[in-house]
Amino acid sequence: MENFTAYNPTQLHFGKNVADTLGETALAYGKKVLLMYGKGSVQRNGIYDKIVKQLKSVHAEIIEYNGIKPNPLVDDVSEAAQIGKLNNIDLIVAVGGGSVIDSAKITALAIANNTDPWAIMKYKFKPKTTIPLIAVLTLAATGTEMNGAAVLQNHETGEKIGYVSSLNYPKHSFLDPEFTFSVPKNYTAYGVVDLIAHSLEAYFGEGDASLSDRFVEAIVKEAMEYGPLVLKEPENYDYRANIMWAATTALNGLTSYGRKNGDWGVHDIGHNISYLYDTAHGATLSIAYIAWLKLQKDRIPARIKKLGNQLFGTNSVDETIVNLETFFKSIDCPVRLSDIKIGKEKQEEITQQMLKNQIDGMAHKLSDDDRKQIVELMM
Amino acid sequence: MENFTAYNPTQLHFGKNVADTLGETALAYGKKVLLMYGKGSVQRNGIYDKIVKQLKSVHAEIIEYNGIKPNPLVDDVSEAAQIGKLNNIDLIVAVGGGSVIDSAKITALAIANNTDPWAIMKYKFKPKTTIPLIAVLTLAATGTEMNGAAVLQNHETGEKIGYVSSLNYPKHSFLDPEFTFSVPKNYTAYGVVDLIAHSLEAYFGEGDASLSDRFVEAIVKEAMEYGPLVLKEPENYDYRANIMWAATTALNGLTSYGRKNGDWGVHDIGHNISYLYDTAHGATLSIAYIAWLKLQKDRIPARIKKLGNQLFGTNSVDETIVNLETFFKSIDCPVRLSDIKIGKEKQEEITQQMLKNQIDGMAHKLSDDDRKQIVELMM
Repeated sequence: MENFTAYNPTQLHFGKNVADTLGETALAYGKKVLLMYGKGSVQRNGIYDKIVKQLKSVHAEIIEYNGIKPNPLVDDVSEAAQIGKLNNIDLIVAVGGGSVIDSAKITALAIANNTDPWAIMKYKFKPKTTIPLIAVLTLAATGTEMNGAAVLQNHETGEKIGYVSSLNYPKHSFLDPEFTFSVPKNYTAYGVVDLIAHSLEAYFGEGDASLSDRFVEAIVKEAMEYGPLVLKEPENYDYRANIMWAATTALNGLTSYGRKNGDWGVHDIGHNISYLYDTAHGATLSIAYIAWLKLQKDRIPARIKKLGNQLFGTNSVDETIVNLETFFKSIDCPVRLSDIKIGKEKQEEITQQMLKNQIDGMAHKLSDDDRKQIVELMM
Repeated sequence: MENFTAYNPTQLHFGKNVADTLGETALAYGKKVLLMYGKGSVQRNGIYDKIVKQLKSVHAEIIEYNGIKPNPLVDDVSEAAQIGKLNNIDLIVAVGGGSVIDSAKITALAIANNTDPWAIMKYKFKPKTTIPLIAVLTLAATGTEMNGAAVLQNHETGEKIGYVSSLNYPKHSFLDPEFTFSVPKNYTAYGVVDLIAHSLEAYFGEGDASLSDRFVEAIVKEAMEYGPLVLKEPENYDYRANIMWAATTALNGLTSYGRKNGDWGVHDIGHNISYLYDTAHGATLSIAYIAWLKLQKDRIPARIKKLGNQLFGTNSVDETIVNLETFFKSIDCPVRLSDIKIGKEKQEEITQQMLKNQIDGMAHKLSDDDRKQIVELMM
């Protein structure tokens, strides 16, 4: 087992009506709030009203930025940071899924350090401080509510990349499973894929971490049991709660303690597809994971077998991959680019993107030949 | 799933030589250190020297209290608190297992609030503040290194009881698996029992928490795989590391999120046996858990079956209990009081102790008849 520090500074409030104390919680950090959210769903489903009511109950001054898109853009973060700086805000309250909360993390850093958000994302500027962030989660998927990661894309440089810092942890996160009742079926399923992919990115890292392996297996089993159920009953509280908590634990440290690293090659592949075609993150992962496993199956058979044994009771590498593919299909997630109407005519463009950005894993390095093969396997 | 807050303020440093930064870490809290430890083993195995060297490297002033016994006494805590107050200490560094760290937690509260430690333990005085605590763990067992619990006994009142407070979390805990290499076989095995018992106390609480159930199953499987191995190879780093991390996760919140409560009846029984005969905590738990399961088997068969199915692949309640008993025996832990030379002649005394203190669980309440039956089942 590798050395590690187990520490997570986020206070995560989980359950029915937990956001009813958000006002008091926010007040501890100040009164000038930058309220960040996305493109309208939180207004339609009433969550926006609840949060504004909370902030008004403590007489907070609310400055809004509501331009955040799925596959969030650094341009929006720059704009939000400008508004935040101009208004001298005390804290950010972010209401949404991974895109909104990730954007808020980098906005907070850009404001506090008065710097260009992309310089932060590229690790060219090392932030020393940040502005407090309170997250209200409306989509169970990325785990951003309890970790230090953020992903943004930049159309100028042609990249979608991740950035990790201990400054990025939200001070508080509010997770009410009822806030996810209105998430459409496809995004609910993509969230299930995302949390499985996060667990597996840890699993396919380097180093022996027996208990962390068991936690991965536990989380993936939970996702495979309750994912299909929540798709059948989107307003079942317990199903939504089980998936929401599983998504948090999939990327809050638990699955990684004692490992040298994770892999994250599949995420790198997925981000580049999202960059090209604005594909939903989860949809890229179900496609990329199957391709990646096929590429790696003769290189890491023992590891894939261990997973297959735990998840599916099989000792066959091929069966493990087929079973995972079958599961993704069963929740209507794509397993080939053709499933999302990206045909052979795009193969060259995708290959060039993968080669240009040298997509790679941390544990399992990819050659240019691997990059080409992965694209072939995804078609 | 019940509402919960997931937050653990302890910074836990795990791995080889992690205590090499203890000096710098301690310095952040001040220079006057109350160094608490037990009855000599940390001096014999060199850990004491390492910690003192660390503290001296940052010119800390060290005041020592080394009177802590296994099954720790409130009298020792009172004495340590007196010394701490007299010397106006800034922080406590506790080097040892559960007894030392638990004692240090209550010593810190007694100093900071200038009050009687037993009044704290009995919840008669509500502490508002505490003194920073840094823990150096030398025994994988209780989980105290990353939680808010402490257990003490009092010979005046005839009790051994637990106290839980959010003030009790150590600021930092240092867990070097090598620090447990010299733990004797019997105490290593008792630690394995203790961590299994903690996991099961959560499991037999009330409320549906599917992922927390899976985490319990993962931790208990880890203990059952690596417990026997570490007994065979006490200086195998990875085996020691796996057991040490399993013991932390068994009682740092992870197994309880989403439940209404745990049970803790077995611990109450065990504490009262330890009180009477100074029996090692873990040794009381392997005895008490088997008896408790036999008492409960017709009341909660589905729950016991679920556990048995996961751990032993059986759907039989009786087989589950027999298999757990067999496991405890396989690591030389007692499963009857007669195994630790407590015979029939003590049955009345034990029964009276259980009745007097009204031993009870939180989820599964015990009647006086149950208390008598449990003692009968333990004989």
